[in-house]
Amino acid sequence: MVKKKRSGITAPEGYMAAGIHCGIKKRKLDLGLLVSDAVAKAAGVFTLNKLKSPHIEIDKAHIKKGRVKAILVNSGNANCYNGKKGRQDALKLIAAAAKEIGVSDHEVLFASTGVIAQPLPVKKMLAKLPQLGDKLDSKRSSEFAHAILTTDKKEKQAALKTDIYGKKITLGGCLKGSGMIQPSMATTLCFITTDADIEKNALNRALKEAVDQTLNLVTVDGDMSPNDSVIILANGQAGNKTIKLNTPSYKKFYKALIELLSKLSYLLVDDAEGATKILRIKVEKAKTCEDAKKVAFNIANSSLVKTAAYGQDPNWGRIVSAVGSAGAYIKPEAVELKLADQLIFKNLKPAAHDKRKLSAAFRRKNIDITVVLNTGRHEIEVLGCDLTRDYVSLNANYRT
Amino acid sequence: MVKKKRSGITAPEGYMAAGIHCGIKKRKLDLGLLVSDAVAKAAGVFTLNKLKSPHIEIDKAHIKKGRVKAILVNSGNANCYNGKKGRQDALKLIAAAAKEIGVSDHEVLFASTGVIAQPLPVKKMLAKLPQLGDKLDSKRSSEFAHAILTTDKKEKQAALKTDIYGKKITLGGCLKGSGMIQPSMATTLCFITTDADIEKNALNRALKEAVDQTLNLVTVDGDMSPNDSVIILANGQAGNKTIKLNTPSYKKFYKALIELLSKLSYLLVDDAEGATKILRIKVEKAKTCEDAKKVAFNIANSSLVKTAAYGQDPNWGRIVSAVGSAGAYIKPEAVELKLADQLIFKNLKPAAHDKRKLSAAFRRKNIDITVVLNTGRHEIEVLGCDLTRDYVSLNANYRT
Repeated sequence: MVKKKRSGITAPEGYMAAGIHCGIKKRKLDLGLLVSDAVAKAAGVFTLNKLKSPHIEIDKAHIKKGRVKAILVNSGNANCYNGKKGRQDALKLIAAAAKEIGVSDHEVLFASTGVIAQPLPVKKMLAKLPQLGDKLDSKRSSEFAHAILTTDKKEKQAALKTDIYGKKITLGGCLKGSGMIQPSMATTLCFITTDADIEKNALNRALKEAVDQTLNLVTVDGDMSPNDSVIILANGQAGNKTIKLNTPSYKKFYKALIELLSKLSYLLVDDAEGATKILRIKVEKAKTCEDAKKVAFNIANSSLVKTAAYGQDPNWGRIVSAVGSAGAYIKPEAVELKLADQLIFKNLKPAAHDKRKLSAAFRRKNIDITVVLNTGRHEIEVLGCDLTRDYVSLNANYRT
Repeated sequence: MVKKKRSGITAPEGYMAAGIHCGIKKRKLDLGLLVSDAVAKAAGVFTLNKLKSPHIEIDKAHIKKGRVKAILVNSGNANCYNGKKGRQDALKLIAAAAKEIGVSDHEVLFASTGVIAQPLPVKKMLAKLPQLGDKLDSKRSSEFAHAILTTDKKEKQAALKTDIYGKKITLGGCLKGSGMIQPSMATTLCFITTDADIEKNALNRALKEAVDQTLNLVTVDGDMSPNDSVIILANGQAGNKTIKLNTPSYKKFYKALIELLSKLSYLLVDDAEGATKILRIKVEKAKTCEDAKKVAFNIANSSLVKTAAYGQDPNWGRIVSAVGSAGAYIKPEAVELKLADQLIFKNLKPAAHDKRKLSAAFRRKNIDITVVLNTGRHEIEVLGCDLTRDYVSLNANYRT
């Protein structure tokens, strides 16, 4: 299951990772550690849920201090809604991890994912920390990627290279899904590493905007977790000239980050809980970006559209209905719907189309839905998935 | 299946109804007609979907004219997204129904429900109109109530009496579910009759406000149909002194209407697509009514809360998380959660509670969820249901 090669978060220079089973879950890996050789700049995007896990505030404070060397993560338990104990537990674990790898507490971040409102079994976790530290290796990213999973069926890693001022820099990342993923917020747990040298404000801006363009345009079930975090570390080991805001090298870095996060977003939807289909929903020619988003997400989160996709039923009336109920600015008579390159609906009535081709499109894994609003120039693409009997079963009987 | 007694929409004096199978569906009743002996005042609340069925505009115009004598309804086909043909078909059917019962076209309303974006088989419907007219009877409300159903498992009727200026007046109603039911909008198809004599502006106000307090606080899947309509007819046959706005008799009438719509709302949720549980979600002590609504609906529409209910899993962390992500004004430290009269969460941590009692509460059909926000004085109660494998199956394989 766990391959040994340099990939994902250890693809960039100067990172080590490991994962271990500490006993929160029955058998699977459930505790991961990522360490940067050099002090890294860090940036984060976190859940907007007002009832969030206590370590989110700790992470924000540590990132603010500006020197990060490690991230400790557990899965199987979200350390959420446990009162003061939750914060104390997080601080204990951070201190122990810091000691293990010989850094200061404020250089360590912590993340959790799993069942909400269960006390964290801190003792079990502390007991395994030394062994986890010993395992640290630049070829164990896959272990780390496994240790953050919950109902995911497979690990989700990606990495890519680009060129900055003549130096190769690398970006790597991993994330976990795969339910409780909400639009317009941070999403799930996602860790990005890079060996690029980049100014902190540039790193911040790049992460925030890239997440808006990728992970924030993904929806699995419209729920928002109290633990969502996307964290990027940049340790400067590539030796490039420092990337500054609004320079060509910044644009290149930003483009690479978008590409990486797009890959990870696709992996996330591809392994969404119980999903059998990926819905790629494009909204074009909207008056504002907000209108485009409203329409795309109203389609992506419509139970009726999602179940129709699952049933491979090209029930496009449900899609048009979701356009009308999105609360966006539209001109009804201007709305067009295309499904897999065929025009299906225009002038408030069905357009002549090949029904066999349409049926065939709904039997494919990727279903392309394009809505043209004809009221402006803004467009957006949102990734969604179908709603299946397996999604219901998984979430009705979740405790592991 | 179809009982012969005076009930539902024919419980008040001076109404006849009937239902028939005209061939839109394979076997079940699919065409219904309701007729008032005397000209009735009418009021309606309609879908806010911007891409709506064309007969909605016709109904609004006819209601505005102020004299309504009949409502024709079909199920199995929503007559939606068929361009100009949809409007022409609706006008044809209205004209034929008007002729059949000897009234003017503008005294007839029309409603449709069923699959979207299929041409209406008008010929079949017209052919059965004479027979439907012949069947009209004050004891066939159940036939009508069946003729408006789609995926519903049973008819949904209710009636009650109250006293106005010493005269008994009666209110009756029926509605259909049971998916695609969205909060804060009109909901589904619902027809109310009364023999009360009431001024038109009072009838209007009573319907609008009562729907806001009942049907608009119900959610099955968060989708909004293009056909939703709630229509009330008041034919004055009870012979009471006319009910005027802001009088004690208006308050009595309003209270009775609320009671009737509450009963119908419960029937609707009780027969929601695939549902096995009813969630009664109370939000108390909110700063504004809007905040209370946001929180209640975010819980009611959370796939994770809904699937946990289905799994009889008292996974209350998902409920607290939905409170935090509702986008409402809350003070996290002030939030309290009660489940079936037990305090479960307070001061950001679990409150001591009897876990066996909690588990037992989730095995019952009605699950009572109470969130106390402690930020003000507003409260609301929303009715929701669970999300089940059967809901998915029903909507994945819907075409009948």
